[in-house]
Amino acid sequence: MESARPVPPRVDGSVSRLLIQYDGTDFSGWARQPGRRTVQGELERALGVILRRDGLTLTVAGRTDTGVHALGQVASYAGEPARVDGLNAVLPADVSVLSCEPAAAGFSARHDATSRAYRYRLLTRRARSPFENRTALHWRQALDLDALRTCAAVLPGTHDFTAFTPTETDHVRFRRDVLTARWEYDPAADHVDFLIEADAFMRNMVRALVGTMLEVACGRRTPEEFRTLLDGRPRAAAGHTAPPHGLALLGVGYEKRRVLPEN
Amino acid sequence: MESARPVPPRVDGSVSRLLIQYDGTDFSGWARQPGRRTVQGELERALGVILRRDGLTLTVAGRTDTGVHALGQVASYAGEPARVDGLNAVLPADVSVLSCEPAAAGFSARHDATSRAYRYRLLTRRARSPFENRTALHWRQALDLDALRTCAAVLPGTHDFTAFTPTETDHVRFRRDVLTARWEYDPAADHVDFLIEADAFMRNMVRALVGTMLEVACGRRTPEEFRTLLDGRPRAAAGHTAPPHGLALLGVGYEKRRVLPEN
Repeated sequence: MESARPVPPRVDGSVSRLLIQYDGTDFSGWARQPGRRTVQGELERALGVILRRDGLTLTVAGRTDTGVHALGQVASYAGEPARVDGLNAVLPADVSVLSCEPAAAGFSARHDATSRAYRYRLLTRRARSPFENRTALHWRQALDLDALRTCAAVLPGTHDFTAFTPTETDHVRFRRDVLTARWEYDPAADHVDFLIEADAFMRNMVRALVGTMLEVACGRRTPEEFRTLLDGRPRAAAGHTAPPHGLALLGVGYEKRRVLPEN
Repeated sequence: MESARPVPPRVDGSVSRLLIQYDGTDFSGWARQPGRRTVQGELERALGVILRRDGLTLTVAGRTDTGVHALGQVASYAGEPARVDGLNAVLPADVSVLSCEPAAAGFSARHDATSRAYRYRLLTRRARSPFENRTALHWRQALDLDALRTCAAVLPGTHDFTAFTPTETDHVRFRRDVLTARWEYDPAADHVDFLIEADAFMRNMVRALVGTMLEVACGRRTPEEFRTLLDGRPRAAAGHTAPPHGLALLGVGYEKRRVLPEN
């Protein structure tokens, strides 16, 4: 009979890589915190049950905040892969593991990632949607899509995003390299989506960019004002932070293979 | 100062028409029932608040069961239209009114409807989805799409659907005219959808059709057996009833204008 007792962590150097989706609504973000329901906490608990190990720690590509979703999050841990069906059987319904596979020795989901791609979704119809109230910001005002696109067009390249992250910060480097940024409009679904891929993101960066661009789209700022914010201005110079529920981590790029197609 | 006291129903003959969406998960179906949370109950309450009327009664095109969703439900009532924004402000988040407009005198959402269209959605990937667990049946077994399509191809036309509704029934007429029926596969989303439009449906009919076709798709019945069920066989001759959460009322046709395009 097999023992259910936890066994010590594997020290054979094997590393595993997880592809994960979650609805962030009912999570206090990714990062494990005592007394809080977090994605990392639920996944480490599930892996502990399936692999019968204590103290397993996940390394993640994109630490999402409270209420932010993921369609293609990547995490890694030291140890053998676990069976996907087993993991999903012990995970709650709002997180799902799509794959769990062996990775190269030394692989880190965070340090080896070369890009992250996010989507911020607006639902632009008069009536709210009972199916999208958790995953899209309901936007009923008029929206100048050309102004949004003018803003997005200045984002590719390397900029100082100090204006788009909280003043109290753990970040030490404020320049990020944006690979792609664009707004897409799907009239059939009433979706207006902001898509952005960069080498890395600072805390709240996508949401502050979206909040500020929406001020341009409502005529409260000019696109030119938006452009000057990319040169390392204080946080107070930029606009508000858009709410978290419109944001989703789409995917993570490795070995410079991008997530989003070129514009 | 305006009085907030309910006023008697309008007797000027005006009729209004509502277009409605709802996530059926947390509703005991459409039809008002004492002590139960129903879509009709919530809408009649909201209309009562906004129009300051008691005893308003909705007539609906498609009475959906517990757990079944609607993307384009239509209902009517005697009285003036209410403002959509006002209605949605007092409705719960899982139901939304898309429009509320004057209708022709004597209009009935139910009796004037010439067709109803439903979709049954399967999510056909290994891992479940945190975003679709309320709106798609997670189907992990192998699925013979050709067999499903062979079944759907025999549905258009007039048949006796006695085998596809509960034996204890209020229905008195068991023949229905199917205008369109097909299975569609979207590999990008891992969706396999059954789409059907008919003059009218009996209770559980789409779910019993889907449950029986899935038995064909798994090799437990032949398409020929499925075909013979359309000639008025007993309920026990057909397969199980697929769960409600995969089903959604897509829309309602009036004046013979269909909801679904031709195959």
